[in-house]
Amino acid sequence: MSTPSPTDATTDRRTRPAGPETTDAAPGRRKVHETGPDGLAVPRTEVTLSDSPGTGETNAPFRLYDTSGPGSTPEVGLPAHRAEWIRAREDVESYAGRPRDLADDGRGAQRRGAASQEWQGERREPLRAKPSRRVTQMHYARRGIVTPEMRFVAAREQCDVELVRQEVAEGRAIIPANINHPETEPMIIGRRFLVKVNANIGNSAVTSSIAEEVDKLTWATTWGADTVMDLSTGDDIHTTREWIVRNSPVPIGTVPIYQALEKVDGNAEDLTWEVYRDTVIEQCEQGVDYMTVHAGVLLRYVPLTVNRVTGIVSRGGSIMAGWMLAHHEESFLYTHFDELCEIFAQYDVAFSLGDGLRPGSTADANDEAQLSELRTLAELTQRAWEHDVQVMVEGPGHVPLHLVEENVRLEQDWCHGAPFYTLGPLVTDIAPGYDHITSAIGAATIAMHGTAMLCYVTPKEHLGLPDRDDVKTGVITYKLAAHAADVAKGHPGARAWDDALSKARFEFRWEDQFNLSLDPDTARSMHDETLPADAAKTAHFCSMCGPKFCSMRISQDVRDRFAQDGMRQMSETFVELGSTVYVDAESARPAPSA
Amino acid sequence: MSTPSPTDATTDRRTRPAGPETTDAAPGRRKVHETGPDGLAVPRTEVTLSDSPGTGETNAPFRLYDTSGPGSTPEVGLPAHRAEWIRAREDVESYAGRPRDLADDGRGAQRRGAASQEWQGERREPLRAKPSRRVTQMHYARRGIVTPEMRFVAAREQCDVELVRQEVAEGRAIIPANINHPETEPMIIGRRFLVKVNANIGNSAVTSSIAEEVDKLTWATTWGADTVMDLSTGDDIHTTREWIVRNSPVPIGTVPIYQALEKVDGNAEDLTWEVYRDTVIEQCEQGVDYMTVHAGVLLRYVPLTVNRVTGIVSRGGSIMAGWMLAHHEESFLYTHFDELCEIFAQYDVAFSLGDGLRPGSTADANDEAQLSELRTLAELTQRAWEHDVQVMVEGPGHVPLHLVEENVRLEQDWCHGAPFYTLGPLVTDIAPGYDHITSAIGAATIAMHGTAMLCYVTPKEHLGLPDRDDVKTGVITYKLAAHAADVAKGHPGARAWDDALSKARFEFRWEDQFNLSLDPDTARSMHDETLPADAAKTAHFCSMCGPKFCSMRISQDVRDRFAQDGMRQMSETFVELGSTVYVDAESARPAPSA
Repeated sequence: MSTPSPTDATTDRRTRPAGPETTDAAPGRRKVHETGPDGLAVPRTEVTLSDSPGTGETNAPFRLYDTSGPGSTPEVGLPAHRAEWIRAREDVESYAGRPRDLADDGRGAQRRGAASQEWQGERREPLRAKPSRRVTQMHYARRGIVTPEMRFVAAREQCDVELVRQEVAEGRAIIPANINHPETEPMIIGRRFLVKVNANIGNSAVTSSIAEEVDKLTWATTWGADTVMDLSTGDDIHTTREWIVRNSPVPIGTVPIYQALEKVDGNAEDLTWEVYRDTVIEQCEQGVDYMTVHAGVLLRYVPLTVNRVTGIVSRGGSIMAGWMLAHHEESFLYTHFDELCEIFAQYDVAFSLGDGLRPGSTADANDEAQLSELRTLAELTQRAWEHDVQVMVEGPGHVPLHLVEENVRLEQDWCHGAPFYTLGPLVTDIAPGYDHITSAIGAATIAMHGTAMLCYVTPKEHLGLPDRDDVKTGVITYKLAAHAADVAKGHPGARAWDDALSKARFEFRWEDQFNLSLDPDTARSMHDETLPADAAKTAHFCSMCGPKFCSMRISQDVRDRFAQDGMRQMSETFVELGSTVYVDAESARPAPSA
Repeated sequence: MSTPSPTDATTDRRTRPAGPETTDAAPGRRKVHETGPDGLAVPRTEVTLSDSPGTGETNAPFRLYDTSGPGSTPEVGLPAHRAEWIRAREDVESYAGRPRDLADDGRGAQRRGAASQEWQGERREPLRAKPSRRVTQMHYARRGIVTPEMRFVAAREQCDVELVRQEVAEGRAIIPANINHPETEPMIIGRRFLVKVNANIGNSAVTSSIAEEVDKLTWATTWGADTVMDLSTGDDIHTTREWIVRNSPVPIGTVPIYQALEKVDGNAEDLTWEVYRDTVIEQCEQGVDYMTVHAGVLLRYVPLTVNRVTGIVSRGGSIMAGWMLAHHEESFLYTHFDELCEIFAQYDVAFSLGDGLRPGSTADANDEAQLSELRTLAELTQRAWEHDVQVMVEGPGHVPLHLVEENVRLEQDWCHGAPFYTLGPLVTDIAPGYDHITSAIGAATIAMHGTAMLCYVTPKEHLGLPDRDDVKTGVITYKLAAHAADVAKGHPGARAWDDALSKARFEFRWEDQFNLSLDPDTARSMHDETLPADAAKTAHFCSMCGPKFCSMRISQDVRDRFAQDGMRQMSETFVELGSTVYVDAESARPAPSA
């Protein structure tokens, strides 16, 4: 994007990686780059639409927000688009960085003397702020500086850049953009902007490889993930993350306590502030854009969880609870919070203040443990802002539908409008295997009331690790929930997408309907299951009812009839006259029989 | 159920039909019959739970509402359980019934001289009310009569029978129970009761066979469908319905205009009141329990749809609009409504007042066309009630999330509390292939606000006809939405199910978690994908995080620690003392660095 294409729109064939679900049979969709202010090349997906049958009306191409990035070769990574923007501010310096430590990759790597698949691509020296400088987007925004990142975001969101600057300055939105992750296409998280979706990936002690995780990353952004969290807890944590960051066009989030725990062989008691801080710096240098920090789990809150149905379900929260109880000390995440802020300010890493005491069942929703922690997160939000560090606040979890709104209302009130970032919430606990749905219900609702980003839940939640299909299902489910919220909020332009698709549906423009879908491949293949013939895709009826019962067709006939005999005008007259022209409905009613 | 079992609970191995998704590996679930008042045998699914590990606490078996019926052989049908109750009221008579007319099954049957698979099971003479009698549950309820149907329903719902009688008498609930469908296990639809789910099945001109449709019926009730609508529009409509009704333990709904249209070769203009009335009687005699009648689509409302994005999307609505425009006459469904009421009162068929002008896109939601029709449905509700005929009112469709509540609020206000029965609604139009989810979001929300029954939407909505897998996905998705609404409404006992499952989850009782799930097979198989070993099902961690990162395990350790050293008491004291025993969190906070 630092080298914008000279034309208004360029086709990029790498938009969607090869895979069984993707086909070249989507000729109606292509990646284009809009030339924004300052020559920014802003990616979009363009859907070419055919003319309306009958009337011959031209339907303009429809452009969608695009998260898929320019496409990468995993071994090489993405170009450092944003590097020039960062250097031009003259407030950063490169340095040698933390020396490579095989312990970062766990015991397997130490035994072998290397990670299982070392990163072979370019290794840049890390950047950090020059002494006494802060390099966060919030810092710039507060000083009235409009950065290229803000301009890029404004062009993507199709809003005024001053809105972006102001919301970031006030802490109501964040642009996660570590200076060591120049590969990103900047995006914004805040209630005044499009609702965003995060996809979790990452290995565990039980399963999966680096290549699989990079593939999941690419797959997730192909289908619309706005950010990706690498929650790896297994072998090769450092190296897996390197591959992921270098290949990611979207911000990457992590939970550093997971890696810190690995470094002390999984014994929570052995964690120290020093091990944790060193892990955070390691990840700052790699380019992680936001980090979940469970600094709101205080010692005095732990007893509040004892009588819960499901205790503490956050991994980070439970690790810290275990540490605090073992040491009888306040959490080092809390006591050292300002040091963390200083580090984050040097790299522009954003806080995702973790909800370590979030409810793990509807029974525990909105309880004293959860709300006590939220009050502490409000305090920490302000402390981070004192350092110009960007903050979002995490939310639950499992919440009955009637209690969902309260979560975002309290967070917005108490945390001074800092963006809320919730996991679902799931509105019932009885449907393992369908928790992408139980949670999409809560997600759409909480986003409608102001949540800025939704962390997806896949069908495997509570049961296993998501595979590639689960990642796609999770992302699409959350994209539809996020969009439903955008529509419900009356977000400018949001419903235009629905209307374009509905018009295509009503006019039997099947290919347009598929191409405008969140998931064209699935829409097309489901249609083909019932009516495989190509001819059926131009048929003026759908496979459910057949031609005679097609309400769309009959309804079009009704419209045509109105158009033809000027009945529309006649009918309007009729309505204005109080319906006296036709048989009056009331008088036509027969007297009730005895 | 007229011959209750002498024991409290009997196992019925026919609960779940054989099929690839069902296994005998669910030993923790079985069908039981509870002996209710008057010896009623009320079906339930009982889940046997194991003891809590560690504490050894006994977990009582958990019983679930059961819709699966006693199980049938398709060629024989179900026993006429309810026949004795109906006869005992001495207000019905049997009669020869309408003669068999091959035209009822369409042109294919007329050509062949028979339907493709004639019903071979028992053929009973139809019943109807004796002259000047009304045999509806509403009629009895209004006279203070408590029927066995009401007692059965009260036992199923675990509520007071007087609540049932009163809600039916006031029209706020219906018990669809055609006297010619004695095979049903009565159920109730009303906002004071559990939210119900309807599954649509039925062939079309394009696809499917009678056996497939009966299989879909059984499959739908196996997974929890409370009623089933037969929306067949293809060949053998009459005979397909016969097979379905004779095999259905749940109420069957239809849309008679579909069959009427078939009888006039699909030409809407050729429809007449006489053809329609005859079709209704035919279906009354077969035992259809409720019928969708689009009597609220008035001539003067049709022009209101012309400028919509998606016109009229209801098949029934568009058929009637076509008829009215062709004839320039008011709808015969409206002008003959009282005659329909008289017929329905003779068989206890309930109205499902169709929303023929429901929005087919979020753009058209809550518009003048839709709301005008609703006002007419309110009028028709009262007219039906004058005949003691039970009524529910249908609702949309496609509605943005922020407009969902208004739909049920207006319906409840205008229609005097008659039960609302909605299709979804879908909260966005951009996700064909995922419309079970876009609509479950709207469904859970509208049910929370008082909708009594939800018509499922399958993933194939807008794309094709649902197959067996789609039926299951649709039913499970809607059961979770309905239950989420029950929980949100604070329905007595609803959350106990969530709590039982959550407790099992927290205690790593994997088998209990699976067996308590809406879909044990899917939960079990997803778990096995990641950790197939049987040992993993007793593991004290789950496959997502592995043992070291298991928050549930750590949280249990925390709880144990509290239990062991009396820390719980100590911590309570600590909290009461204002947290002065431990390091005070605020004072532990370091001064902000410069």
